Amino acid sequence: MPDPGKRAKGRRRRRKADSNQRRPVSPSMGGSVGGRYQPLNSEDLPRIDKAARAILSDVGMAEAPEIVIDHVAAAGGHLDEEGRLHFSLELIENALNGLPRNFALCGQNPKHDMQLDVAKVHAGSGGAAPLILDLDSGVYRESTLRDLYDAARLVDSLDNIHFFSRSMVARDMPDTRSLDINTAYVCLAGTEKHVFAAATKAAHVEDIANLCYAIAGSREAFLARPFLSLNCNISVPPLRFDAESCEIAAKAVHYGIPLHSNTFGQMGASSPVTLAGSIAQTIAETLAGMIFAWVLDPAAKVIFGTRPMLTDLRTGAMSGGSAEGAIATASTVQIANYYRLPNSVIAGATDSKIADAQSGYEKCLTVTLAAQAGSNLITQAGGMQASLMGCALESYVIDNDMLGVIMKSLARIGVNDETLALQAIDEVAHGEGHFLGRAETLERMQSDFVYPEVGDRRTIDEWAADGSRNIRSVAVDRTRQILQQHYPGHLTEELDRSLREKFDIRLPQSDMQAN
Amino acid sequence: MPDPGKRAKGRRRRRKADSNQRRPVSPSMGGSVGGRYQPLNSEDLPRIDKAARAILSDVGMAEAPEIVIDHVAAAGGHLDEEGRLHFSLELIENALNGLPRNFALCGQNPKHDMQLDVAKVHAGSGGAAPLILDLDSGVYRESTLRDLYDAARLVDSLDNIHFFSRSMVARDMPDTRSLDINTAYVCLAGTEKHVFAAATKAAHVEDIANLCYAIAGSREAFLARPFLSLNCNISVPPLRFDAESCEIAAKAVHYGIPLHSNTFGQMGASSPVTLAGSIAQTIAETLAGMIFAWVLDPAAKVIFGTRPMLTDLRTGAMSGGSAEGAIATASTVQIANYYRLPNSVIAGATDSKIADAQSGYEKCLTVTLAAQAGSNLITQAGGMQASLMGCALESYVIDNDMLGVIMKSLARIGVNDETLALQAIDEVAHGEGHFLGRAETLERMQSDFVYPEVGDRRTIDEWAADGSRNIRSVAVDRTRQILQQHYPGHLTEELDRSLREKFDIRLPQSDMQAN
Repeated sequence: MPDPGKRAKGRRRRRKADSNQRRPVSPSMGGSVGGRYQPLNSEDLPRIDKAARAILSDVGMAEAPEIVIDHVAAAGGHLDEEGRLHFSLELIENALNGLPRNFALCGQNPKHDMQLDVAKVHAGSGGAAPLILDLDSGVYRESTLRDLYDAARLVDSLDNIHFFSRSMVARDMPDTRSLDINTAYVCLAGTEKHVFAAATKAAHVEDIANLCYAIAGSREAFLARPFLSLNCNISVPPLRFDAESCEIAAKAVHYGIPLHSNTFGQMGASSPVTLAGSIAQTIAETLAGMIFAWVLDPAAKVIFGTRPMLTDLRTGAMSGGSAEGAIATASTVQIANYYRLPNSVIAGATDSKIADAQSGYEKCLTVTLAAQAGSNLITQAGGMQASLMGCALESYVIDNDMLGVIMKSLARIGVNDETLALQAIDEVAHGEGHFLGRAETLERMQSDFVYPEVGDRRTIDEWAADGSRNIRSVAVDRTRQILQQHYPGHLTEELDRSLREKFDIRLPQSDMQAN
Repeated sequence: MPDPGKRAKGRRRRRKADSNQRRPVSPSMGGSVGGRYQPLNSEDLPRIDKAARAILSDVGMAEAPEIVIDHVAAAGGHLDEEGRLHFSLELIENALNGLPRNFALCGQNPKHDMQLDVAKVHAGSGGAAPLILDLDSGVYRESTLRDLYDAARLVDSLDNIHFFSRSMVARDMPDTRSLDINTAYVCLAGTEKHVFAAATKAAHVEDIANLCYAIAGSREAFLARPFLSLNCNISVPPLRFDAESCEIAAKAVHYGIPLHSNTFGQMGASSPVTLAGSIAQTIAETLAGMIFAWVLDPAAKVIFGTRPMLTDLRTGAMSGGSAEGAIATASTVQIANYYRLPNSVIAGATDSKIADAQSGYEKCLTVTLAAQAGSNLITQAGGMQASLMGCALESYVIDNDMLGVIMKSLARIGVNDETLALQAIDEVAHGEGHFLGRAETLERMQSDFVYPEVGDRRTIDEWAADGSRNIRSVAVDRTRQILQQHYPGHLTEELDRSLREKFDIRLPQSDMQAN
């Protein structure tokens, strides 16, 4: 009897050949360099930096747990009589100078490695949505572990989504320990791309680390090529530590798992209503987490994760698709690049509940400004709806096309004698009157241009004859097709069996292959 | 019997009061300053400029009509033995130094004036679509004069669309003379905002000028506050003049109508496949038109209208939603600002046939990059679909919301002691723990934020209970409502009667009021 895994792989290979015929293949655009958009004046950067340092040193952080107090006080902080932890300016300066830079977040497959050099841009999924828009019914329901696995393998197949950050909460898990280990497992089983996971409790980090070590082959192998990192909201605005998150961060550092020091603020609610103040406070809070990790281990890989989100002041709810949030976000990217720190932001968090025109323009504005500002890791850039409360699988497929054009818009315009093409212009002007038949046109047709996967460039007549469909309807079909066909086989059966022996894996093996 | 006009006005006033209650009113964002996005390196600007000058002087322009040859040759050009017109470097330099700058395109109502200073951004409609997506049937059909009038008054009511460029061809006109005068008339009758019109033949420009003079009250009044300008593709790539358009341009200059010197190129087809070459050629072609107008009259108001559009090389068709076109477009904006010339570009030309997610992200990417680069006049930024082949009325309403967030994303982030808000942060950290109740939060809620008109920020539950609609469906209803209610009354009955006596106006008076 033939091995079903091998059969599936053969199908995959054939399908890839078909899609190559359909559109030219372009090299991955992950790591394209941004920074051509600079929302802040250069003289504003040191001003905001100074304000952020003043906030940490003068106002300080509340609710620091013992582990933070112990380490930060020893390194140059002090606790005041109200219990606020103040960071000395010297400690801040030393940490900013000493924090590791230019490291990589790896994929299980090296082709997905992401080098976090200044202004190199990658876009991925993200979120912690409690709900999913059911692909069949089109109605929101609670998300499950299987949904998360499906999202991971969907992203695995989409070229312009460069990493998979856990996007949904698996609400069918019996407890948080099951949730944490199974979340990490289905993400790592669903994609070879770098995975951002999360831990609910510090006690669960060891499980996640052991899972990673087992997949890598050893602790050393994982440390050399870390293919999973942990999202962690160490600070909670305004200016408080979250005790459990501090313990989680400490465990991540201990186990050599790269750490995202994220601050999810809400302008006008948990941070000032003014953009500058909101940005300064978010910088300070994010730095607090970075400094804590650095004090624990100066070699710890920590990512500067500012999330200055907007509050719609009419309702008090978070709005993800606003212009104000987009420029605040891009401004924090500019400051992160000013610090030369590896960084991440949230963009793509539309307020629309489904992939419609609002979803398209809100995602595009926020992701474009973050990418053009040069964000290393744009999370929530694909798949999310409803101000991050919902995930839609077909949205990944649509957003993959959107991210293709946004990443392509980072391309440098080479200006030299060849590209200025004065000779070609002269020849065409004196000759046949168009450039279509020229050799360089045909050559560059494959290399220089991005073609949409589900986006529609047909004429009105062709489109009407084919049912006048909108892109969401086309993407739903394409999503079903991918989910039926794409079962990544990078975890061998033997490895998978051993993981299931060591860990309480809740996703049935039968869900991990085509039926 | 009450005057029906007055009744309609009363209704309008009441409706405005209602919508004020629904969302705070923010001041117009037209004229916000871009330029924070710079796709080209500063050293590339003189290189491209030099290449463009070399193209005009060494390669020259073909098919120059007599009027161009006469004037340009006298000013410093020469015709070669193949009949190509070469521009001397001195003439180019003199024109670039001498061309008028910093003028305004006015509205019939001064509140809609657009001051074209460097990097001041305005967004509007545009196009010459032969088809419209019928609001009732949802099927494309030939567009009519009534459609164009409806589009004009729709745009008149939408705050974030700053001018009305004729977007459809009225295909129910018996001849081009009727077409030209009626196009100008219904645009000017439909909106008080600045109108871009077009002429099919030079002989029709006099009609359009006389219509404008009649509405302004006199020729002098129009020259002082020109509320209509003419789109004109003086150059046709690669490097040819269009004879009729040259005559049209000359008439526009003669009658004091501001002129758009537009070049609509297609990368890889009518211009080089390389971005740099395509940009250089487009700059040269657009300058050729500018220089011709300047030679005719050094005081002529001419706008630098580069349109480096993309060819999908698989089909040879124009693609309006591409990244490559978006950065080429934004690059020409940067060069126009380097020249300090009043400028316009096309953005928002999605390839999608309807307002779906593709339409949203393609429009948003192209408009955002043009706006952030600092384009004075972004045409086609609202209402267009299908690579400019179709117009959809509901798309204006959706795009108005999109343009609101894009324009808001140009806002400068004020960084000063007040906005850094260190005292507020200190007070909140030591006090109530949130900023929601603070005076500055409430104050800025009205002034600092943009709220969507049809965009949906509700929760999933609220949205589902209200029918789970996408924004297109909501916008169709809103469009019907506006079209039923908004009949701008700025042309008095007496003036309108006199216009109808002088010109062959084909839109029945009965179409210009609520029924």
